[in-house]
Amino acid sequence: MTIPANAREFRLASRPDGIPGPENFDLVEVPVPTPGEGQVLVRNQLLSVDPYMRGRMRDVESYAPPYALDEAMTGGALGEVVASGSDRFKVGDTVAHQLGWREYALVDARTAEKVDPSAGVDLGAYLGVLGMPGLTAYVGLVRTAQVKEGDVVFVSGAAGAVGSVAGQIAKLRGASRVIGSAGSAEKVRYLKEELGFDEAFNYKDGNVTDLLAAAAPNGIDVYFDNVGGDHLEAAINVFNVNGRAAICGSISGYNDENPAPGPRNLGKIVGWRLRLEGFLVLDHFDLLGQFRAEAGPWIRDGKLKYQETVVEGFENTPEAFINMLAGANTGKMLVQL
Amino acid sequence: MTIPANAREFRLASRPDGIPGPENFDLVEVPVPTPGEGQVLVRNQLLSVDPYMRGRMRDVESYAPPYALDEAMTGGALGEVVASGSDRFKVGDTVAHQLGWREYALVDARTAEKVDPSAGVDLGAYLGVLGMPGLTAYVGLVRTAQVKEGDVVFVSGAAGAVGSVAGQIAKLRGASRVIGSAGSAEKVRYLKEELGFDEAFNYKDGNVTDLLAAAAPNGIDVYFDNVGGDHLEAAINVFNVNGRAAICGSISGYNDENPAPGPRNLGKIVGWRLRLEGFLVLDHFDLLGQFRAEAGPWIRDGKLKYQETVVEGFENTPEAFINMLAGANTGKMLVQL
Repeated sequence: MTIPANAREFRLASRPDGIPGPENFDLVEVPVPTPGEGQVLVRNQLLSVDPYMRGRMRDVESYAPPYALDEAMTGGALGEVVASGSDRFKVGDTVAHQLGWREYALVDARTAEKVDPSAGVDLGAYLGVLGMPGLTAYVGLVRTAQVKEGDVVFVSGAAGAVGSVAGQIAKLRGASRVIGSAGSAEKVRYLKEELGFDEAFNYKDGNVTDLLAAAAPNGIDVYFDNVGGDHLEAAINVFNVNGRAAICGSISGYNDENPAPGPRNLGKIVGWRLRLEGFLVLDHFDLLGQFRAEAGPWIRDGKLKYQETVVEGFENTPEAFINMLAGANTGKMLVQL
Repeated sequence: MTIPANAREFRLASRPDGIPGPENFDLVEVPVPTPGEGQVLVRNQLLSVDPYMRGRMRDVESYAPPYALDEAMTGGALGEVVASGSDRFKVGDTVAHQLGWREYALVDARTAEKVDPSAGVDLGAYLGVLGMPGLTAYVGLVRTAQVKEGDVVFVSGAAGAVGSVAGQIAKLRGASRVIGSAGSAEKVRYLKEELGFDEAFNYKDGNVTDLLAAAAPNGIDVYFDNVGGDHLEAAINVFNVNGRAAICGSISGYNDENPAPGPRNLGKIVGWRLRLEGFLVLDHFDLLGQFRAEAGPWIRDGKLKYQETVVEGFENTPEAFINMLAGANTGKMLVQL
């Protein structure tokens, strides 16, 4: 395949108030660069869109720096090396890296990871179940919440890229009962019939505390939180003594212009000895080897299932991102170029 | 001293809505019992009044059962054995036990602890700095928040029985800077000039986040929470990455009829990897020996200071309790009979 002279990238045009729209993104054509020493040029084939990117659209310094206005956005991506200035990669190699939101990426070879497309694992898995989302689920359950045999585990956003893996890992690690929440009847069916959740509910069907209490008549011990807001309040209401929340994200509030008040039931935190702990996967890359050693066989044996929602066409990346924030995906949301 | 035929006890007359008043307590005269096998009769000399008792006035099952209506209330107490049916104690011994709120207590000898009045430690210390409040401070800092050398530590309710010990232990354990909040200029002076806090502020002087940020220009690493509400929100605002809150109580809300909304800034919990963890001293009695071994020399050497606010007269116990909830005490609030 010939390398074109120019290719497209998405830049942050403006910072959204509330729900992002197409106007917040600029599609710009730029020259395709030539890799220097230690660099590779990658033709991106799959792009990842993830909830945390909404945070990077704000002008607030956090764990990941904000996206700069009028610069190409970044994120997980996977593609083929088309030119190499590095001994580590040759033309034709497939690599995962962090320069998504563009058609061609000039990647520092030290930040790329080679992927074997003949290993029998779907390539998208390296951006999902075996990649950052999968590791995120593993870290939150195993290290932060310290899930143990017999625990009752509740996962919110359970049909998403992280939640769907979290619920299954909980079960594989010996949880006695795993409950998931999601935003549609079809997702609820998917959780129960395909992923093996013991119980699931559509949070739009009523008060989240009532729905959770009905699904967990003996309370919950671990909560894997992707949603925040009323879901966190519900988990606290239903927590048993020594309940532990691994707080991964709070997608319910990402588009809020003003932060909503926190849960009214924090008073329970003392009497019930609850622990609410936030975590970021980037602090826990030391667990990647252990995670893949454990999850690889689960995937091979069909015990750890995953699904992808794939949107076709680079130009549809912002739409895929916006729809993912609204819950349009089941499993990992990807863009196929 | 002759044992009288009758003596007085306080019973819970009704459950308060909001701030408790004298009408919630009944002062009742009852016969003084004779100890049976394994029991001792104790003439109480010092009674403890503590924030957690407000929770027990509610009809809500929690870690400690609610006080029953029309029954004698309970709580930490210290007194002299005046009759004994147990080999473990003889008449004249001084013991600490859990049957406060009364003049004479019939105590199961297994639940009493002998105290040596000649050890040179003020007797009240066994209800305060060396008792449950001191152990509570130790557990929260050492086990829950895992304070380490160089940490910046913030303690709310810092002039109280638990807070005053927490701040000093933080310093003795190597914290680089200890900040306290309290509710009067006199308490602030006490924290800085007598207890060695590096900084302290009167939370009534303005917005708690502003006051804390000014006192902690480099942020805080550990928060020992006795207050909840706006103090917890302020601590989250000012937390550094990996900030840890040991949540001991939330006196600001104990008299609320309806729970106030939680902090609006819980969104920070993920990006800053914060941990909010509630604890109860009763889960951690295994640390009592270690605590006393460490704190005893500190007290003897004058490194760990304490103060008591002593109210005279058994009949003033409810008033002492109510005033303690409103912050009238510096250090441990006690009633001397």
